[in-house]
Amino acid sequence: MTTIFTKIINREIPAYIVAEDDNYIAFLDIMPLAKGHVLVIPKVEVDYIFDLEDEILAGLHVFSKKVAKAIDKTIPCTRVGVAVIGLEVPHVHVHLIPLRSIGDINFSRPKLKLSAEEMGEIAETIKKGFDA
Amino acid sequence: MTTIFTKIINREIPAYIVAEDDNYIAFLDIMPLAKGHVLVIPKVEVDYIFDLEDEILAGLHVFSKKVAKAIDKTIPCTRVGVAVIGLEVPHVHVHLIPLRSIGDINFSRPKLKLSAEEMGEIAETIKKGFDA
Repeated sequence: MTTIFTKIINREIPAYIVAEDDNYIAFLDIMPLAKGHVLVIPKVEVDYIFDLEDEILAGLHVFSKKVAKAIDKTIPCTRVGVAVIGLEVPHVHVHLIPLRSIGDINFSRPKLKLSAEEMGEIAETIKKGFDA
Repeated sequence: MTTIFTKIINREIPAYIVAEDDNYIAFLDIMPLAKGHVLVIPKVEVDYIFDLEDEILAGLHVFSKKVAKAIDKTIPCTRVGVAVIGLEVPHVHVHLIPLRSIGDINFSRPKLKLSAEEMGEIAETIKKGFDA
């Protein structure tokens, strides 16, 4: 069974992609907790983060660091927080969330509603920060 | 300036330690969101996780995986969630939180109040899972 995230990797469904290499891809969360909320995933389709092989797990976080640095540079925030929950889509995903206060990581909160235009602009901004 | 976490590493203040190696240490969060809520930290005193060197960052998550596997084995939960916020103690710490539902990672929620005896028992249980 192919997850929705594998469909994004394969370009079968669209996403606001901000960074990609051979093993990982990062794109905007479609239900963001904050502007610039990004998901980073391994291309290998594994459900639970702690079932990833050590090398892929380590690389996932090093790649996430590069994406977080791009967010830090381009999105107004105090720092970038990290969350991995994984009770919904069965494909490992690291949430990178621009934070201002400790309550900002709260998945019970209502999500932001951003237009496609805004999402595209945010993605482009972070992408430029990543490529710089 | 020495952080409270460095004081734990140096045994200057007590903690419910569940795992340790040369570079990392894990202990119970004193204000847990769930029973078995653990903090994993690097021994190097760095404030922001994305300022860690790649190697230390990678190792932090591989060590956290081992601790999470011990939690999975010993604490009733669906899986272990991960959060890094870092707006309070200026020393990188990864929260490992036994989860049942997506709302379980919410730092605005009231924290559990557990007795010293309960905390000691939980730590001992996870420690045994780690050492096994």
